[in-house]
Amino acid sequence: MEVFKRVSEVARFSSEKMKKNGVFETERLFCDVYCFEAGQAQNVHTHEGSDKVYFVLEGRGRFRIGGEQRDLGKDEAALAPSGEPHGVENPGPEQLKLLVVMAPRPGH
Amino acid sequence: MEVFKRVSEVARFSSEKMKKNGVFETERLFCDVYCFEAGQAQNVHTHEGSDKVYFVLEGRGRFRIGGEQRDLGKDEAALAPSGEPHGVENPGPEQLKLLVVMAPRPGH
Repeated sequence: MEVFKRVSEVARFSSEKMKKNGVFETERLFCDVYCFEAGQAQNVHTHEGSDKVYFVLEGRGRFRIGGEQRDLGKDEAALAPSGEPHGVENPGPEQLKLLVVMAPRPGH
Repeated sequence: MEVFKRVSEVARFSSEKMKKNGVFETERLFCDVYCFEAGQAQNVHTHEGSDKVYFVLEGRGRFRIGGEQRDLGKDEAALAPSGEPHGVENPGPEQLKLLVVMAPRPGH
């Protein structure tokens, strides 16, 4: 297993939908880079038993966590705790790049 | 619990030793910002049963994970899997700032 990675080297965008790119994956967690073109979204969803941390690398994202909505930019982070509905969209016009860690890794 | 945070606002340095600053903490994980002045280190140590992800926000760090050593800068990440000895030092001259997620949260 490669334990050192340059995050920008694994970051890929897709014209079809937001793209998740794996950085690290273990039995306990995954670390991904999520890439959103303008207008793309990760729809609101919920994980029972797993927490997710988002960190904005580039661009600005519109985050919904539970009943809250916030636009976050570079240097800002969000926590989606187990059981809380959460989602992100990129209102544009720039691309949006997020570092995401989720634990424990979902079983599916 | 505050689910949105500006990471640079919680990042603090200490002249005495590297400083860990909490960003998020749940039952399942913690997310911290580790701040190292030049010459400061997190000594090599091991966690059984928890994995740690490091992401370099600013500066350059000298990472040791298992038998490997690598200098990493901005945009680079490292994984310290459960049971692997790991540590970081800041060779300087700049400050070093790391985003760190560990899961599951150690019991101590």
